[in-house]
Amino acid sequence: MMWGFFKEHSSTKDIVRNKGLAKLGDSLVNFCYSLAKSEVLTKPTGEKVRDSVLARAIRDTPVYASIGRRADSGVAADAYEAIMAYFWLNGNGTIESIVSNLVQELDIDSDSSRKEEGEIASRAFRKLLLGGMSFLPDQSE
Amino acid sequence: MMWGFFKEHSSTKDIVRNKGLAKLGDSLVNFCYSLAKSEVLTKPTGEKVRDSVLARAIRDTPVYASIGRRADSGVAADAYEAIMAYFWLNGNGTIESIVSNLVQELDIDSDSSRKEEGEIASRAFRKLLLGGMSFLPDQSE
Repeated sequence: MMWGFFKEHSSTKDIVRNKGLAKLGDSLVNFCYSLAKSEVLTKPTGEKVRDSVLARAIRDTPVYASIGRRADSGVAADAYEAIMAYFWLNGNGTIESIVSNLVQELDIDSDSSRKEEGEIASRAFRKLLLGGMSFLPDQSE
Repeated sequence: MMWGFFKEHSSTKDIVRNKGLAKLGDSLVNFCYSLAKSEVLTKPTGEKVRDSVLARAIRDTPVYASIGRRADSGVAADAYEAIMAYFWLNGNGTIESIVSNLVQELDIDSDSSRKEEGEIASRAFRKLLLGGMSFLPDQSE
């Protein structure tokens, strides 16, 4: 299926500030993380990924400069989600490949604390983002 | 990707009462509905599908009997979400086919009220469920 509503963007700044893409990316990120966590724990489960986890994942990446100064966790997480939606809609990655990438990094078990899991998930999401940087358009300010 | 955590179930009752599948199905349903709504409104957007919408979708279907008596909206919505997760994990439907089915029924526009959209969405989700009934295991009590 081609997505009729999808538009290519000419700048990363436009993507990270697109609230519609962020909303769409929110459920994509939650679905992929839920699948990855289910794989790692070997039983079906689901998770709402916290803003703080995604905000930490996008900080210290080259794309962070496109968000604007002093972005709070909500804005930074929205940016992350918008980028993931953009990648997926654009055909740069499938649900399966996203999950597979997350699973490789998701060194958690059923005893992991919420804090530990959050830190590990942040690293997994950061690596996923860095792996897709070449698919983003112009990242200059 | 084969899902290592996925187990076939021998009864529909086991599926609709599986809380892990319901959690996983929650983000699947939200993602598919968000994509369908984006297609219909021709711009990216996202939506958390309310329990009441999914509960209404599963009532008056043959599978409702598997849930148990006097299920509240939360329990009925969980059952719906668990079934969708089961279908998808089992390969009975892709994201694209689910979205395509929803889009066909989703006669909304940007002026639709929340109530109207909810009723239309319920019908779309009911039709989607009825279309997949043959993929469910034993539905006897």
